[in-house]
Amino acid sequence: MNPRPSALLPDIDGCISALSVALGGNGLYTKREDLVRYETGARYGAGQAAFVMRPSSTAEVAVALKICSQHRVTVVPQGANTGLVGASTPDESGQQAVLSLERAASTLQLNHINRSIEVSAGVSLSKLNDFLKSYGLWFPIDLGADPTVGGMIATNTGGTRFIRYGDVRRNVLGLEVVLNDGTTLNFMDQVRKNNTGLDTKQLFIGTGGRFGIVTRAILEVHPLPQNAATALIVPSSPAGALDILVDMEEHFGPQLTSFEGISRTALAAVLVGVPQLRNPFLNEQLPHYSLLVEVSTWTKGGDGNLTLDQALERELERAFEAGKIENAFTQDAANLWSIRHHISDSLKLKGKVIALDVSVPRDRFVQFRDKACEEVKRLADFVLIADFGHLGDGGVHFNMIWPHEVPSDAELVERLRTAVYDLVAAHGGSFSAEHGVGPFNAHYYKRYVPAAKQSLEHLIEEALASRSLGNTLS
Amino acid sequence: MNPRPSALLPDIDGCISALSVALGGNGLYTKREDLVRYETGARYGAGQAAFVMRPSSTAEVAVALKICSQHRVTVVPQGANTGLVGASTPDESGQQAVLSLERAASTLQLNHINRSIEVSAGVSLSKLNDFLKSYGLWFPIDLGADPTVGGMIATNTGGTRFIRYGDVRRNVLGLEVVLNDGTTLNFMDQVRKNNTGLDTKQLFIGTGGRFGIVTRAILEVHPLPQNAATALIVPSSPAGALDILVDMEEHFGPQLTSFEGISRTALAAVLVGVPQLRNPFLNEQLPHYSLLVEVSTWTKGGDGNLTLDQALERELERAFEAGKIENAFTQDAANLWSIRHHISDSLKLKGKVIALDVSVPRDRFVQFRDKACEEVKRLADFVLIADFGHLGDGGVHFNMIWPHEVPSDAELVERLRTAVYDLVAAHGGSFSAEHGVGPFNAHYYKRYVPAAKQSLEHLIEEALASRSLGNTLS
Repeated sequence: MNPRPSALLPDIDGCISALSVALGGNGLYTKREDLVRYETGARYGAGQAAFVMRPSSTAEVAVALKICSQHRVTVVPQGANTGLVGASTPDESGQQAVLSLERAASTLQLNHINRSIEVSAGVSLSKLNDFLKSYGLWFPIDLGADPTVGGMIATNTGGTRFIRYGDVRRNVLGLEVVLNDGTTLNFMDQVRKNNTGLDTKQLFIGTGGRFGIVTRAILEVHPLPQNAATALIVPSSPAGALDILVDMEEHFGPQLTSFEGISRTALAAVLVGVPQLRNPFLNEQLPHYSLLVEVSTWTKGGDGNLTLDQALERELERAFEAGKIENAFTQDAANLWSIRHHISDSLKLKGKVIALDVSVPRDRFVQFRDKACEEVKRLADFVLIADFGHLGDGGVHFNMIWPHEVPSDAELVERLRTAVYDLVAAHGGSFSAEHGVGPFNAHYYKRYVPAAKQSLEHLIEEALASRSLGNTLS
Repeated sequence: MNPRPSALLPDIDGCISALSVALGGNGLYTKREDLVRYETGARYGAGQAAFVMRPSSTAEVAVALKICSQHRVTVVPQGANTGLVGASTPDESGQQAVLSLERAASTLQLNHINRSIEVSAGVSLSKLNDFLKSYGLWFPIDLGADPTVGGMIATNTGGTRFIRYGDVRRNVLGLEVVLNDGTTLNFMDQVRKNNTGLDTKQLFIGTGGRFGIVTRAILEVHPLPQNAATALIVPSSPAGALDILVDMEEHFGPQLTSFEGISRTALAAVLVGVPQLRNPFLNEQLPHYSLLVEVSTWTKGGDGNLTLDQALERELERAFEAGKIENAFTQDAANLWSIRHHISDSLKLKGKVIALDVSVPRDRFVQFRDKACEEVKRLADFVLIADFGHLGDGGVHFNMIWPHEVPSDAELVERLRTAVYDLVAAHGGSFSAEHGVGPFNAHYYKRYVPAAKQSLEHLIEEALASRSLGNTLS
């Protein structure tokens, strides 16, 4: 969302008029039946668009943004609309316009020797990885959703293999962006090392379009692992889970490609919700907390594969002998990963999901979790806690389930959220580990982001806006 | 360096007066004999300091910067003074002051479970890694020099294992910085995932103190590899070197921890310059170009070690059978790495070294190198080209040697530099891959950095300065 610094009302009609000329019929939607599909978000947000722009090129994006800027119309950039903070859909005012890159180029130009790819922002993650697969490569951000590249850069997505590959930020080499006034900036570096001043592309990563819209990117891509060994592990204690993490990292280094945590409630929900999945625990009681761990190797061939499975088994045996784990299952990796991937959907079957996407420093995880569970119980003891997440990078989807049979209470839900976020902040964590900031959690941005950081962002935004709008400051 | 926006002259005496009170005797040097050691740079720069500040805490850094700002004195932050662009020493005016963190805290606080460390900016890399070694960890930026953490952040250093671990930017989780007006900003995150707006710490990484001085950092640290296998490889052709790189990456993934290139002239220089090193080529002609490749494993124990050597041997055999390599040596890794590490010093024995620290997209390396060699030969055929560097990340120290017996010609040297940098730019590369920007190469910054990038940096600097100096813009 690009808030206009001017206090004057947007001139929608004038804007549409100018855009009709600039974008042409296919490039501008104004009829209600065409706008509807852009107006509701994946999870939050149901608004009304003044119009929808579908520019066919970066040049048209620039013209469109310039015209909107001149007519004081707020632009909401929308990728695949899978965002989870309501930032990709217009509000209810009917005064905001959506910009989609679905008509723009779908460049996918691989530079194999450089191990990088030029890709248009409107290309989806699945399309990108389908393309790369035949080269034995992938863009290693592993999500439950299928966003566009532009959306992934705007939110700096992470995923289940962050522990090995990092986030989108780590894998962006270059960007082409269009500022809110229509100025196009080409920072399309293919080089990996360029220490010539401020890394200006950082302004556009993880900032949700605040400073400008990404139209193209150069992304770093990686060889696909050839073999993986997976284990579902039952640690002897919650604190022990972190010991196991440290051991696994020290032993496998970057061959540790995933380290996830799953609470009993989350595990139970998925085993009930998706009965075709095999329950490794058979009729035993489900563990209080389990770990899903994956190690990978890039070496082709049988020898490599045998070594990896053996190496993982050996580590598990050591941990067992040291009393760190109670149990471990290494068979049927596909089933284990299916369990992990079906958690989100399964929780919805049990009630209304209050989803929190947080992170804490890894060493604070257990204390945070204990305190948060205590506090939730104190405020609303009927609420179930079904947390799961990327324990390896300190991230946890601290999802709570409000049973269907309990009458809704929006104020209590807000108090629960705030209570947990307050604890996250007290433990040095982040209230939005992955999903970014948007209308849905804007009030938390104000509450938890340090004042100095907010000021800096505002200062920079103002500086860019003042430059573009003829140096007038608001 | 912090250029003052005001046109008024600095008030050195007033500044010293105020600083004497604020920093105390030990914290402020004004006598010539005390200033001398801060005035000459590692490679470039020999100036004169107005005075040297040695604050003992972040609070004192803040006060010192505020006082200097009020008295319009330019502050030059200096770490271990190993920088290679003249940015850590004062100019000849005698009007610039040096700020050193050598008296400030030397915090080294490891968070083992989080795999991160809090460290004061004045701590040296060697001290940091000596501390971490006993925990089986390291900060994986592998350099020929021993800079301070603050200096490494300011220049975003890379090193010989960039291909595996990335640069400093990739390994910074949090920062504490003091702006030029004395405002202290605490962005000391220990979390790895925090998508709550602009990543403000990026303003202070790789920007040489332009926006503020780093006083503390939270760095990500990594498990030390347990085993490594090294090979000196002779590719069948220069272009083949890149094929081998792609093969190695696809085969070893993140177990490929280094991939360096060495020209014949560089190799010859070191084998002559350091006769105690063993020449793997015995009496054979040295190859036109060689590769130094390292693969690592984190697995402890004999099995892991055997597998890695075998895996590397098997890859080398495949490459040999495919005609991609002519020869390879895997014995005596220590000797091979010694050869690599002694190149820089050995070149100095052969003449005056014109050192260029550049990078190009990996696929452009051979074309760039061929053209650059051609152009240098055209301009000055007596100049030797002794390039070497981090081929795996596209980086190359395109070092030229001006023989001692040829009379110096500063203007020709400048023409040579510019000619090579022009070719770097034409091939989509960077004129400063690692060393950053400073007085020594400021004119190249103006020439090669896109105007839009320069404007953005300037805009942000102005915005910060205007805020601090009561909103007056210059």
